[in-house]
Amino acid sequence: MIRRLALLGVGLIGGSLVRALRQQRGVAEVVGYGRHRDNLNQALEQGVIDRVADSVAEAVTGADMVVVAVPLGAIRPLFSEMVGHLAEDVVVTDVGSVKGSVVEDAKAVFGTLPVWLIPAHPIAGTEKSGVAASFAELYQGRRVILTPLPESDPVAVERVTEMWRLTGAEVVEMEVEHHDEVLAATSHLPHLLAYALVDSLARQPSQREIFHFAAGGFRDFSRIASSNPTMWRDIAMANRQPLLDTLSRFRQDLEQVETMIRDGEGDALQTLFSRAKQVRDEHYG
Amino acid sequence: MIRRLALLGVGLIGGSLVRALRQQRGVAEVVGYGRHRDNLNQALEQGVIDRVADSVAEAVTGADMVVVAVPLGAIRPLFSEMVGHLAEDVVVTDVGSVKGSVVEDAKAVFGTLPVWLIPAHPIAGTEKSGVAASFAELYQGRRVILTPLPESDPVAVERVTEMWRLTGAEVVEMEVEHHDEVLAATSHLPHLLAYALVDSLARQPSQREIFHFAAGGFRDFSRIASSNPTMWRDIAMANRQPLLDTLSRFRQDLEQVETMIRDGEGDALQTLFSRAKQVRDEHYG
Repeated sequence: MIRRLALLGVGLIGGSLVRALRQQRGVAEVVGYGRHRDNLNQALEQGVIDRVADSVAEAVTGADMVVVAVPLGAIRPLFSEMVGHLAEDVVVTDVGSVKGSVVEDAKAVFGTLPVWLIPAHPIAGTEKSGVAASFAELYQGRRVILTPLPESDPVAVERVTEMWRLTGAEVVEMEVEHHDEVLAATSHLPHLLAYALVDSLARQPSQREIFHFAAGGFRDFSRIASSNPTMWRDIAMANRQPLLDTLSRFRQDLEQVETMIRDGEGDALQTLFSRAKQVRDEHYG
Repeated sequence: MIRRLALLGVGLIGGSLVRALRQQRGVAEVVGYGRHRDNLNQALEQGVIDRVADSVAEAVTGADMVVVAVPLGAIRPLFSEMVGHLAEDVVVTDVGSVKGSVVEDAKAVFGTLPVWLIPAHPIAGTEKSGVAASFAELYQGRRVILTPLPESDPVAVERVTEMWRLTGAEVVEMEVEHHDEVLAATSHLPHLLAYALVDSLARQPSQREIFHFAAGGFRDFSRIASSNPTMWRDIAMANRQPLLDTLSRFRQDLEQVETMIRDGEGDALQTLFSRAKQVRDEHYG
């Protein structure tokens, strides 16, 4: 059991983690730290955290588990504020959607990736944010990717693995670079497309009609464009090169589709649509 | 009340229409015509249609309402097969996602858009197809767009309007060209992007991992890529120019996003994301 968990950033992801751990009696005490007092008060009232810390230093003092659950752009300063205040037996982990940038942040602050810092990424979430949107079941049946380095402490890896297993998630390990490539394709690019399309349509003359006559398909397609803009700016900035690579491939593929339409190549288009449908049905059918 | 409805194409859209009409006692008899005998038998068993016609001519004979609910590419031959078999008091309507091509098809077959042919488009559907996927509530709270021409018979417009109102839908009228532009942006382009992205990802080396580690956001985003490929090939072919126009605008906007990422313009990116989130939340919040 975790003796004291310091939750830095008390939102959907961190709040849901703690709710799940409490249901499984996997944590004794949770100390919360965050920038928005209203949100922290809500977390207190809802029993997500036991008390509020006024600083990162205060939050991590005496904690055996520190979970960094803030947007990627806020991680480096948080690391800096931890220095000198961490307990001997601490394990630190994060929930960022990009792992290369977290390793870089750690190296910049600590000079190396500390053996007790295990980068992690729970593949779960909704388009909502804040502790009010958190719920204990968020991670059930979902996957959590850990990206430890070869020098990481196996005991620390095991403690982070156990914590996430308690939430009902499947925990897997992956190399940092590979994680960032896969997530660029499967998560970061779709978010980018959804944001870009909604914005593109919103700037057209008949935008009110466009949204008025949109059907359920568009509602689902564009759901991720309701995600937190700061978080996604940070993700795009933190994972620039893999994201540009996958975007560039997609843009080329899209140009081929455009050519098929322009040239009236219905058969080629149908082949492409059928292939896509088959793949999607296989994975989600 | 409709005396005899000829349903040409007994799938999700037509089947749901008839189920809703039956619930409201808005139709006495339904004759079904289609290419797939299994599907027609299912429609008979489930009481969606009362009998099967072996030809379009047989189906429309004596019908006071003909609903053409087949993929756009199949409409022109159906129109041809109707010639000489329609009743004096008939109204013909369709459910196609593009209206310009239906008007063209009618002109090619009938020499003009007949006053009794009222092009229509119910903005509803799911990624499923076939009569087995149909349900009476599909149109509740949805919109149905009619695109009559100035010369259309007002009585025919009224009869189609009444039919759709019985399903719980809101019926609006729009000009043909405007309909096709709005739908290109709000429906056809998102489908194209979803198909293209799923196919693009499926052809990458780590495709199995990509789909394995996709989260709920991607599942929603890509749902429309499970739609019927023939239907969507026909839509793309029938609405080529408006679709190419909106696709070209989107590609330019996407290139700007790419530049923002490449140049590390986090603020500009956040502004765009925030704008998109605001618009989406306004319309679906």
